[in-house]
Order: sequence, then structure tokens, then C-alpha cells
Amino acid sequence: MSKHKVVFQPVGAKVEVEGESNILEAAAESGIYINSLCGGEGVCGKCRVQITRGEARPTSHSIRFLSREEINSGFVLACQTEVKNDLEVWVPPEARLEEEQILTTESMVCYQSPQDLEVKDTLDIPSLLYMPMTQKIYLSLPKPSLTDNLADLDRVYREIRKKVQAPTLEISLPSLRSMASMLRENEWQVTATIYPLDEHCIEILSLEPGDTCAENYGIACDIGTTTIVAQLVDLRSGAILGVEASHNQQARYGEDVISRMIYACSRGGLSSIHAAVIEPVNTLIDTLVEKHGVEASNLTAFIAAGNTTMTHLFLGLEPCTIRLEPYIPTANFLPSASAAELNLHLHPNARVTCVPGVSSYVGGDITAGVLASGISNSSQISALIDIGTNGEIVVGNNEWLVCCSASAGPAFEGSGTKCGMRATRGAIQKVHIDSDQVHYETIGGAKVRGICGSGLIDAIAELFRNRIIDPSGKLPRDSDNPRVQQNEGEMEFVLASGDETETGKSVVINESDISNLIKSKGAILAAMRVLLNSVGMSFEGLERIFVAGGFGNYLDVEKAIFIGLLPDIPPERIKFIGNSSLTGARMGLLSRHALARANTLARQMTYLELSVDPKFYDEFVAALFLPHTDMDLYPSVKQVMGS
Amino acid sequence: MSKHKVVFQPVGAKVEVEGESNILEAAAESGIYINSLCGGEGVCGKCRVQITRGEARPTSHSIRFLSREEINSGFVLACQTEVKNDLEVWVPPEARLEEEQILTTESMVCYQSPQDLEVKDTLDIPSLLYMPMTQKIYLSLPKPSLTDNLADLDRVYREIRKKVQAPTLEISLPSLRSMASMLRENEWQVTATIYPLDEHCIEILSLEPGDTCAENYGIACDIGTTTIVAQLVDLRSGAILGVEASHNQQARYGEDVISRMIYACSRGGLSSIHAAVIEPVNTLIDTLVEKHGVEASNLTAFIAAGNTTMTHLFLGLEPCTIRLEPYIPTANFLPSASAAELNLHLHPNARVTCVPGVSSYVGGDITAGVLASGISNSSQISALIDIGTNGEIVVGNNEWLVCCSASAGPAFEGSGTKCGMRATRGAIQKVHIDSDQVHYETIGGAKVRGICGSGLIDAIAELFRNRIIDPSGKLPRDSDNPRVQQNEGEMEFVLASGDETETGKSVVINESDISNLIKSKGAILAAMRVLLNSVGMSFEGLERIFVAGGFGNYLDVEKAIFIGLLPDIPPERIKFIGNSSLTGARMGLLSRHALARANTLARQMTYLELSVDPKFYDEFVAALFLPHTDMDLYPSVKQVMGS
Repeated sequence: MSKHKVVFQPVGAKVEVEGESNILEAAAESGIYINSLCGGEGVCGKCRVQITRGEARPTSHSIRFLSREEINSGFVLACQTEVKNDLEVWVPPEARLEEEQILTTESMVCYQSPQDLEVKDTLDIPSLLYMPMTQKIYLSLPKPSLTDNLADLDRVYREIRKKVQAPTLEISLPSLRSMASMLRENEWQVTATIYPLDEHCIEILSLEPGDTCAENYGIACDIGTTTIVAQLVDLRSGAILGVEASHNQQARYGEDVISRMIYACSRGGLSSIHAAVIEPVNTLIDTLVEKHGVEASNLTAFIAAGNTTMTHLFLGLEPCTIRLEPYIPTANFLPSASAAELNLHLHPNARVTCVPGVSSYVGGDITAGVLASGISNSSQISALIDIGTNGEIVVGNNEWLVCCSASAGPAFEGSGTKCGMRATRGAIQKVHIDSDQVHYETIGGAKVRGICGSGLIDAIAELFRNRIIDPSGKLPRDSDNPRVQQNEGEMEFVLASGDETETGKSVVINESDISNLIKSKGAILAAMRVLLNSVGMSFEGLERIFVAGGFGNYLDVEKAIFIGLLPDIPPERIKFIGNSSLTGARMGLLSRHALARANTLARQMTYLELSVDPKFYDEFVAALFLPHTDMDLYPSVKQVMGS
Repeated sequence: MSKHKVVFQPVGAKVEVEGESNILEAAAESGIYINSLCGGEGVCGKCRVQITRGEARPTSHSIRFLSREEINSGFVLACQTEVKNDLEVWVPPEARLEEEQILTTESMVCYQSPQDLEVKDTLDIPSLLYMPMTQKIYLSLPKPSLTDNLADLDRVYREIRKKVQAPTLEISLPSLRSMASMLRENEWQVTATIYPLDEHCIEILSLEPGDTCAENYGIACDIGTTTIVAQLVDLRSGAILGVEASHNQQARYGEDVISRMIYACSRGGLSSIHAAVIEPVNTLIDTLVEKHGVEASNLTAFIAAGNTTMTHLFLGLEPCTIRLEPYIPTANFLPSASAAELNLHLHPNARVTCVPGVSSYVGGDITAGVLASGISNSSQISALIDIGTNGEIVVGNNEWLVCCSASAGPAFEGSGTKCGMRATRGAIQKVHIDSDQVHYETIGGAKVRGICGSGLIDAIAELFRNRIIDPSGKLPRDSDNPRVQQNEGEMEFVLASGDETETGKSVVINESDISNLIKSKGAILAAMRVLLNSVGMSFEGLERIFVAGGFGNYLDVEKAIFIGLLPDIPPERIKFIGNSSLTGARMGLLSRHALARANTLARQMTYLELSVDPKFYDEFVAALFLPHTDMDLYPSVKQVMGS
């Protein structure tokens, strides 16, 4: 097979590929990650690149997404174009997944930082419950003699039992192999790392020289579809020493879980997509270790929370059946593994655990969220809403919990929108409109690059409030508002003109964007209605709504209510809890009891499968209006807008 | 470093060695195993070989064991002679460890064959207790649907719980990885192999397509210092399908456990000596699998019983501390491992367990022996004696058990004796002397090659009964018995003249041989006396003595009593139970309850460390007589011989 060289500009990354690689694959191999929303299926049009040297033919798929001019200038879809010659490829900024984006300080506020947890009251783990996933115990063993001639292992067990209750103790064969010389070389002064399996049984993960009890750390990790966030936690004090975030490099295999499942179930797909989760997790661990001056060998516990697909990919389990009716995961309750089994950069015997999930579409991230929100600790009925590509909703209290998941599409994540982008530097995040006056804020105060989910919600609420769009989201063709214009047959509203933006192109919202967002919010609201109906409740019964997810504190509650994304209840009842998946994971890291509680919660939650519920469709159609076809559900909006 | 070629004759095995290899090491590398009783320390003189081409200098050590003539003809000690030139080496038959020896059909009767178990009564496992180490369960799973949407793992668990009680079920991550497609490709018809950890918890070792319940096998293995014996057991019926035996290839690193420990604790020694146990075990498994037409993948359980050193080497644990005061093993209760961890040729997830031991010198073989003998099931006080290089003794009943170990030296194994050999083809095993008439039987009826342990006991008893030797074991210098002669300053008795033997050299017993045997039997008798004294008992209190070990049924009980190896109690109270280590191991394989009992027994047995007991030395000295200095202990001998 012949080999071809490809150079990717403006970075200059080079790669040599053979056989049937397409440009998307070649780019990934060279370390350049091209946006591929659909996972290389040729249906999203996001991976547009320009061939600047060499020859490559666009396929029929490409033509759908490219203008004649673009085709003439050498634009192709990277995923649809095979490398058949040496090529130079220019990757436009909008097609690149930049590592840098998410790692800017500004964007970090999207993630819950330890200081400003709004739900601190529910996160305080009473000292009585504090029992980290792993513990270190210093053992000063009496030297054996003819009268005290216990075997080494029994000697270690005896000493551990003086300090902790442990009817049964276990150790693995490899740990035992070097025990004899290790104990003697260190004058019988050693530290045992223990992992309590349950009340009866404790496993000794490792024995090491001297007293290292002062250094015992764990990692709590939220494995999101888009972003991975890891916290370094001191297991002795519970203190968060640091937090780092990174792109989930699986994005190169598709932006949403469905595309990734399709990829994972293709030949060899699973192992590369599994590696693509492990790799960024390791990078985060490496960074945390280096920044905070701890030894990787003192990282003895790791806990991950993620949706069911992410958890499967993290552990290397086949995700294929999650995607297809009847939507069955391999497991919701996952076995723990050693760091070595997963190639994680921790102590090789460190324990790795995943927060259990409920079903294929309500995963461990939601269980962790329920744990963190504390909704199951109170008799008040509350809801947890995690807004992302999928919207997961849990409703209940300390006696019952019901949950469901609705596909919301990518609008809230800033994708699937003409000028959409993630909530990173340069994204419009807040909008105020006064007739043809538009006021906006960008993340980091930077020049405008696009609009993120919270900006979009703001903008649409403002357009609606100003009656620039009607309740169905349409822009009038005969508007005298200078910002309303027609472009390629579609009506759009100009938020920022070319001279305000970094690219020089104006940032707009068009009718398709509005329609997509209405569908997204409609799906979530409909899901919540069906869920509440299933337990004979209405919106008013909700004492509290906890909103989790990437929006963080950016989401303007009143505007979210105004467009009908959130129920019309007093705004003070709505709380943002940020990355509650991460918070719940950390709780599990610090308290075996919290982890046991997560297990109970996952078993307790009744899952409602909406995709087969005819009521969901009816509710969805009814919600495809701003704020809703039934204005009686939105009295506060009715008051402003009239009926 | 320069390389040298060595050819070993008469086999013609060639090897190229470099550096500082000695001839013993070079031979092992070429596949020729030279007898090395002391493990290459230069102190046993067994590895004499003749240099027939090339030059090699004998060392001072060599000179001790070689006559001037032998040195002149090129004899050296293989372990003391470095290879510094190209060499041709002739390995005399007595210096070779022949694989073939032990594998002859005749020698197999040394091992307990399933048909002729003498202690059958104690081995019957009541059906209520039958619960093999691993079990297969056929699962015909209902296909998932939207209304029965349990995760795959929960679905498997649910079905298993219909068939067995299992509050907790566990599975490893690797087993989970292929579960989704495995279940679907096989239409939800699969077989689970389960391993009950305790009453609460069951581990799923594997899932495989279809119904394979009819095929579930285990291996029970006795890992002896000299010999390894493996039985193939049908775990469904308990039937023994086959048995194979082989040399423990560690013998190349020393014949006794002490030499092997010294070797194992030298650089790199442990991994090669570990491999040298695994290799012959695998050969036995391969042979069993082939002979009996079973699939290795249907071997799901393996249980080993061996002394503490062998168990350590089998698992790759450091044995170094066993040898040195205060004689501490790494562990008496060993963690189980997977077949893959130990590279055993079974199903990779097969469970491998070792019968637990009591101390450094009372190992799992003795625990298994106690289990098999049934002494702990009865209120009668019994003893178990395992006679080998070490003599282990257990005394007790269903309420208490005490045990000890005495170093008996190699005399009973046919080593350390001028014409000694193992109990294999051509060994004199039975002797009757009538003045100068000697009648003997050889194993397999073959031409005489030497004398084994049971033959030596017979011969010495007969020499004593005929008053050819006195109670101290001396041969008179002025005997008129033509078979009594002096040779190189030492008195000896000719059992077989040169024309009766295969080598043409006469087979004799000399005073050193007799003295060694008296020391060996003295050590065992003294140990038993100290043990009985510790519980305020004398010989008469023993209702039964079970004799285990390589002697098998060859040992003549009355003669063993006559020389003072066994206590003078009615011979019908003494029973041979052959390889009770293997029998006990098999019981553990077939019954979790039996294995749990072995654990209890190992904890229950009180170990007496004789090496620091001054009473032992006194008893030992008193026992260095035929049968004993205190003839009142041997009334039956006193009656025959007078006092």
C-alpha cells in the first residue's frame, strides 16, 4: 500500500498515512483534533477543511455542506475525503478542537470550584461518616521470635486489627511476593494502604516502607461527554488540593455519545476510544501531581462519575447495546479495578471505582448529582435537572425518586447553531436587547467569537420579550428592525456585526437556531411534565429545583423560565449546583457511606423510558412554543406578555 | 566474555555457555539434570562427573569427595568446576536425575491410586457436604425488552440467584468486557462458572457460550519436594479420571528444601525456581488433558498441597525467612490466584488455591493429611506421621491437635546412603536375612540398582534381628559372616554382589548408612515422644497411627517398630494412608466445607518448635539405639531379643 504525507496548517503538523485513511483520521494521528459532531458520518458538516496543496476530490456528502465557491477554493469535508496523494491541509479555526480553549482560567469558572459551592450545606459530610475509600495505617510490627512466630502476613493482620475492625483481611498474591524482604529491610516499620470492601472485609492494597500516612490522596473525576474534570483530594482532611479540566479526546470520534458508540462498535473502535478517555485523565492526573507536588504513588483511590456510555468507555466495556432498543447497558453497578488494569497514572494498586448508574440514559453522573444535591435527604419534593445534550431529570425526596432522560440536542452546548460555540473565551454569554440595541457580555471580556448556550437562551428570551420573535420563534419577514435580515433565504437576527467580532463575520441567530433551541427546551420541559404526571404532581409541588451541568452560574433563571426551559416557580427555589457529578464523586471518595448511599440511590430510582411513552410526544409538541402552548403554566410570562 | 561449548555424554547434549557457569549449571541448561543433593554447595559429593575432553581443574572441595585415581581420570564435582574451556563431560548413571525413573508404571504404586485408598471410610464426603470449589450453572436468560430492561450483569445475577443462594455476586472487569456481545451472539444461552468465596459472596469466574455444564474439571496437586503428583477430578461426580506424577524439576537446584531456599534467595533464583515448579505441573496438566480427552478450558479449579517451602515457591513467594531462626514464612494462609497469574495451563480464570499450613515446617501437605486421615473427626487420640526428609507428626483428636517437625535427613528417601536410591525400578524394597542368606525383592522385579528407604529399614531390622549388628548399629570387625567386609576402612554388609546388580558393583550397607538411618528414625521417634509428653501422654495412648509419605504400602510395619522408627503398639493400629496430602487436596477441591475445615485445622494445630526444645535433644540421644535405650518402651522387641 502506498503512503502519503499530509501537513496540517497553520500548525504544520505532519503525518504519513497509508491505505484508506481519511483526512479526519490523518489529523487525529498527527495530534490535530478536528471538530466532528457526527463522528465522521458526513452528516454534520463541521469538519470543513481546505486543501491547499495536492489533490483531493470532495464527495457527494461534501457538496451538501459546501458552496460552489468553497468547493472551487478546495474545501472538503475531512471525514469524507480519503488521502490519496500528498496533501497540505488548512484547518480553519472553527473546525479545530483546541485544547487551549477549555483550559483558560476564565472557563474554569464553568466548573464548580471548591470555594464557591452553593450547596455547601448538603455537602458537609458529618465527621461520623468520614471514611475515605482508602486509608493508610502505620504499622510498627514487633519483630518475630521463637515465642512470637506468627507468619509475616498474620503479623501484619494482627497489627491492622489493633487499629481497625476487620473480621476478614485480604491481600493479593503480587503484594505478598515481596512482603518478607520489604518488612525486614525496613525494620518492621511499614505503612499499609487499606481498602474496606464492606464492614466485614478489608483488602490490603499495598505495603510500603516507613510511615507515609501523611500522604494519602485520591482523585474524583467527572467524565463528561465533552469535558473531563479531575480534582485532587487529600484523603486525610477532605481538602480539595486542585482541579484541572480537559477536553474528552473522544471528541475526535464524534461529539455526542451516539456517534461515539457507533465508532466504538466498529472494528477496533473500542480500544482506541477507551484509550482516548484514559489519556486525558492521565494528563489531568500528571498535571495535578506536578502542580501540587505530590507523588503519584501516594494516589491510592480514584472515583469516576459519568453517563453510562462514558463509564462503559472508561472501563473498556462494549457500549453498543446502550444505543439500540431496548437500551441495555452491560452493567449499571460496575466492579472496581486496579489502576494498573486501566493504565492510570496512580499507585498501580490504587482502587478505581465508578459511581453506579440507573439505566442506559441515566448514569453515574446523575446518581452522583442526586447524592450531592441532597434531594434524597429531605422530605421536601425536589428536582434535579442536568442540562446538556441529554437532559436528565430526577424528581423525588427521601422516600421515592423517579428519573428520566430526554435527548435535548446540542443547542445548550453551543453546537448545532450557526454561530454557536462552547462556553469558552469570546462566547457571548449574556444578552440584553432593547429594540434594536443589543448589549452583551462575552466570556473573558474577549472579542466576540460566537454564542454559547446561556447566551442563546438569553438572546431568545430577549427577542421574545421585545416581541421581535413570536411565540413560535419566527422572525417577521417585514421587520423594520435593522438587525433582522434575510440571508440565503433564512431570516436572522444580528447580535454582533462583523466589526465587533474576532473573525470579522457577524454573529447571528437564525430561525433554525431558534427552532432548535425551542425543541431542546421543549424536550426537557416535556420530560419533566411526564415525570411529574407519573407521580400525580404539577410544577407547583416542586419545593426546589437543582440545576446541574455546564451552564454553571451563567444561566439566567428568569430568562430560562421566560422561554419555558424551567417551570414557572419562584426563582429563589431554583439553585445552581454546578458540576454535581464531580461533587458527588468526591463525596464517594471521602465516605464509604456516601458511596454505599449512591448504590442504594441507583437501585432506588425508578426509571421512566420516555422514548416509548406516547404522553411524552404530546407534551413535547405542546412545549414547542415560547414559553408553552398552555400559558396558564407560565403565569409570570403571561403577566408580562399578555395572553 | 568468551563462550565455551560443553557436550554431555552419553546423551550428547550440547550447550554453549559464557561467563562463570559451572558444569552443573551448564548441564541444567542443556536439559541434563545432575544429582545435586546440596544445591551446588559442594558438600554432598553427588554430582561427580568425568571430564573426557578439555581441561577443568578440580577445586579443594572436589578433592574431599574424590580419590586420587578418580582425580587422575578427570573426575570433578560438577557444581565446583567452572567451564573455562570447551569440554566434553561424561555423566555417570548415578549422577543423573532421570526423568524416566519416576514415570514407570511400577513406581506409580508408590502414590495413592484412587482404587486402593485404605482410608476410604474417612474420605467419603457426605453428599450434603459436596460443594466443589467451582461450579458451572447453565443460564437461559430471558431476552431484554423495554419492560424487562435490566442491565446485562443484573440479568445474569438474577438468573444465578434463581439457582444458588448468593447475597453478593462479583465479577472481574475483564470478564465484563466481552459480556454484551457474548450474551447476544449466543442467544442468551450461556454457562457461568462460579466460585463461592463464602456463604455470602460468589464470584463469577467466566461466562461461556451454550451449555458446558457437563464438563467441569479440577486438578488436585501434591507438590512434594521430590515429586509432584496431579489428579484430574470430575467436579460433577467427584470421580478421579487420572493421575500423573513427575519429578519436581527444582531438584536441579538442590534435593532438599534447604538447598532450594538458599538458591531461591540468591540473585534471580526465585523466578527460575518458581518456574521450575510451574513447568512440571503444566506438563502433568497437559498429559492429563490429552490422555483423558478433556479441554483445558474446562479445568476451572486447582488446589495444591505442599510443605511451606514448596507452597512459597509454587506461588513465587520469598522462602528465605523459613530457613533462618525464628523460621517465619511469608504466609500460612495463602490468597487464591487465577491460573493466568501463575501461567498454569487451565482456563485462564480458573481459581488456584493452596491448602493452608501451620508453620514454616508443618505445611499444607500436613493439614491436608490431617483432613484426609480424619483424626480430627474422632474422639480417639491418633497420630499422623509423614516420613520424608522432614518427619512431620501430628497428634490429637476432635478437640485438640499438636504438631511438630523433625529433620530426618535423606535416608528414608534413599539418599545420603552409599547405595541408596529412590523407590523406583531396580531398588531393593524388601529384605529378609537368615544369617548369611539374603532374600530381597526389587521394585518392578528388575535387576538390582540400589536400595530405597523401605529396603534400608528392612535390611537394618533384619541385620539387628540376626544380631549381625548390635543395638548401636555397629558391624563387628571380627565377624565370620562372609557378607561382612571392610572397605576403605569402613565395615559394610553386602546385600547383593556385583553379579546380581545392573552396574556390576555390589550393593552394600555400611556403618555410616546404618548410623544415618538410626539418626533419622531417632529424630522422628524423639519428636513423637516430646509431642506426646507435651500433652502428658505415652505411646500406649495412641489408638491409631496413620503413616503417610512416599513409603506407601512398602514399609513393613513390624520392622519399622523393630528398629524403633514407630512406637511399639499393636501393628493393626498402624495404617498407611499413602499420599494423604493429595487426598486432602482433592477433598478441598470437591467440598468447600472440607477446605473451610482445612483452614480451621491449620489454625487449631498447636505447633511445637523442637529446634529450641532441650527435651528434644535428650530424647534424640536416647533414641540413637536399636530400637531405643529404654527397652521398656519396646516390649515386643525385648521379647524377641532379650534385654
